[in-house]
Amino acid sequence: MAMEILIETSARHLHVTKEHLETLFGKGHELTLKKWLSQPGQFLAEEKVQVVGPRSSFPGVSIIGPVRPATQVEITATDARSIGLTAPVRESGDVAGSAGCELVGPAGSVTLTEGVIVAMRHVHLIPEEAEEWGLANGQLVSVRLNGSRPLTLHDTVVRVSEKYAKAVHIDVDESNAAGMTPSDGGEIIA
Amino acid sequence: MAMEILIETSARHLHVTKEHLETLFGKGHELTLKKWLSQPGQFLAEEKVQVVGPRSSFPGVSIIGPVRPATQVEITATDARSIGLTAPVRESGDVAGSAGCELVGPAGSVTLTEGVIVAMRHVHLIPEEAEEWGLANGQLVSVRLNGSRPLTLHDTVVRVSEKYAKAVHIDVDESNAAGMTPSDGGEIIA
Repeated sequence: MAMEILIETSARHLHVTKEHLETLFGKGHELTLKKWLSQPGQFLAEEKVQVVGPRSSFPGVSIIGPVRPATQVEITATDARSIGLTAPVRESGDVAGSAGCELVGPAGSVTLTEGVIVAMRHVHLIPEEAEEWGLANGQLVSVRLNGSRPLTLHDTVVRVSEKYAKAVHIDVDESNAAGMTPSDGGEIIA
Repeated sequence: MAMEILIETSARHLHVTKEHLETLFGKGHELTLKKWLSQPGQFLAEEKVQVVGPRSSFPGVSIIGPVRPATQVEITATDARSIGLTAPVRESGDVAGSAGCELVGPAGSVTLTEGVIVAMRHVHLIPEEAEEWGLANGQLVSVRLNGSRPLTLHDTVVRVSEKYAKAVHIDVDESNAAGMTPSDGGEIIA
């Protein structure tokens, strides 16, 4: 059974706590909406920070809002090696014992002892879609990426919530490995 | 039918003509063997050059010897974007109309109008292995990469020659997408 689905590639980005946002951008600072993203309530902010590793850094990494309970930097394995880190593949929010880095903003800097991860690919579904497709929260499926050099990702976790919009989220290494362009879609193979 | 096979990740590298080698390293210069590679006669050289794109550059990119009839730079799609190029996915040797760049060595520099490619993944087999496995030169197969986030590459071309050693060659984007370590193998799925 193959079900067509939107494939979205997450560029490198970070989520920040209210406290870290104020350290980086100044007391009382709030994130500025640049663009709403596909997942309801999530938005690309105008604010960017420098992400500094032991070897080098990325100058202008975008923040995705709103603020969260923990600061989390999402990069690819290629990015991690490039700036001199080893970041584990983790589900969002699971940052214990992950890599550290320094964040530099216009008003100050933050030293993270953990929070840098390679985001584990995942499928977002609302309960009605999951039921229609016979999929359950936490289930692992394969996802075929129909790019110019097609491939099938295995062990991709399904996440089900009323707060989601139907899409598969992959990182830039996965997207490039499949030769994806924004118009290329995919299929869930359960 | 699944056949276990060695998976080798090609780091960014280049092949050079004798003429370009002399421009970059000086008249009469010959490549210095650093390490023999798995494919018979191919070796990692001590010589490194800077690969310069419109946006930035990679400082120490290794040459793979021996010298070839055409200079060819093999990078990932991630690399290409990083230095400001759009490099096509091509089979080795098929460089017509590919991306250009500048190469800088200790004795001089070379401006390439074409030659920068993302190497198309491929399987190397000798004729006896191809026959044993029922595969033909030019055939497309799928290759499962058994890394920490496993995936299956489709449309992977089989190359058969007496001069090869049995291995699948992938690039760093593909390797990272699958979470491969040097000890992780794969399977051809015909």
